[in-house]
Amino acid sequence: MTTQLSPTERSTVRRGAKRARTERDDLHATLDAGLICHLALVVNGTPLVLPTCYGRRDDTLYLHGSTGARSLREAGDVCVSVTRVDGIVYSRSMMHHSINYRSAVIHGRVRHVEDPDERWEGLRLVTEQLAPGSWDYARQPNKKELAATSVLALDLTEASVKIRAGDPGDDDEDIEANEVWAGVLPLHQTWGTPVPSTDLIAELPVPEHVLRRS
Amino acid sequence: MTTQLSPTERSTVRRGAKRARTERDDLHATLDAGLICHLALVVNGTPLVLPTCYGRRDDTLYLHGSTGARSLREAGDVCVSVTRVDGIVYSRSMMHHSINYRSAVIHGRVRHVEDPDERWEGLRLVTEQLAPGSWDYARQPNKKELAATSVLALDLTEASVKIRAGDPGDDDEDIEANEVWAGVLPLHQTWGTPVPSTDLIAELPVPEHVLRRS
Repeated sequence: MTTQLSPTERSTVRRGAKRARTERDDLHATLDAGLICHLALVVNGTPLVLPTCYGRRDDTLYLHGSTGARSLREAGDVCVSVTRVDGIVYSRSMMHHSINYRSAVIHGRVRHVEDPDERWEGLRLVTEQLAPGSWDYARQPNKKELAATSVLALDLTEASVKIRAGDPGDDDEDIEANEVWAGVLPLHQTWGTPVPSTDLIAELPVPEHVLRRS
Repeated sequence: MTTQLSPTERSTVRRGAKRARTERDDLHATLDAGLICHLALVVNGTPLVLPTCYGRRDDTLYLHGSTGARSLREAGDVCVSVTRVDGIVYSRSMMHHSINYRSAVIHGRVRHVEDPDERWEGLRLVTEQLAPGSWDYARQPNKKELAATSVLALDLTEASVKIRAGDPGDDDEDIEANEVWAGVLPLHQTWGTPVPSTDLIAELPVPEHVLRRS
């Protein structure tokens, strides 16, 4: 795969094209910075979008779910969006108010992963994206849990990335009037203090990967 | 409209049904706590999902976009998801790792709003959700800006809400073993220090609605 994204008809950025990125590295970085994705499917002819977890290795995105989930079982063409909001853009005019964000949108057909090694690795990637460091600390999946879990793979070939950063883009008249403050209010995601489960039957130290999560 | 959500076939929660809420108030609160939504459409037979802004009044969700955006112009059946991640659930086993979240999913057909008063109110609601307090502070839309903007309405009749909060749900054997710490790492969204636009031609005070955004 090349280092550049190769847009198809449906992955060509049309609105806000100046925010489009073409480097595959930007796609990877945007996906790696996310926590959840929004997975869209067509079910009975109408769209369905659901939040779910994901993981990535190289140019494959992994999803998982219960084998009982009809939407996943029947998933064919999908679209996945990963969005991180970095701040609110306060402009002089309402219509130029905006968001600073990193957004990746992927189109493709999911592959139901059958190979045991790839299923294992897919699950590891999904749970490590959710909780880095947990895979080697918590109890890993047993046979029964594995049998109840679908692992799906989505190729990152057909994808687009948009990133907005920095100042508002106001009209010259509004800038010159200088009547309205303009700027960016950054939005941070910060981890709070870990809350131990009430059913811990004896005290255990909070592991470092939870306590020091970045 | 009743105070209860009235599930249809596609808005019935199947996975994790114990997390489903049935009060319309939970839907409203979940939507009001969000910042962006993910809008799913079917375009040329395949799904498309995009992050976008929204606003709400009573049981109507409003969206806006450029009149040039083909996806919005042709939007019919849509699905909208608003998700807020409240924390990561660290369980004793990888398969019970989870997320504490508030999630609303709405199904429906968008209505292209034509009435000037409703268009104005829809725009106000969308921008006030993004930047509360800005509508009465910044320059409001002019005729040209209004003409270039589509306003869409989506009825909140067909919607589902899922909320997960609290402790991990581990298997008894894992709880009794007491070998692995379990609990929740809260995720907070916090506003940083406002960054004035570099093109402010003279200093202006940061308005209270930005400085004190909650």
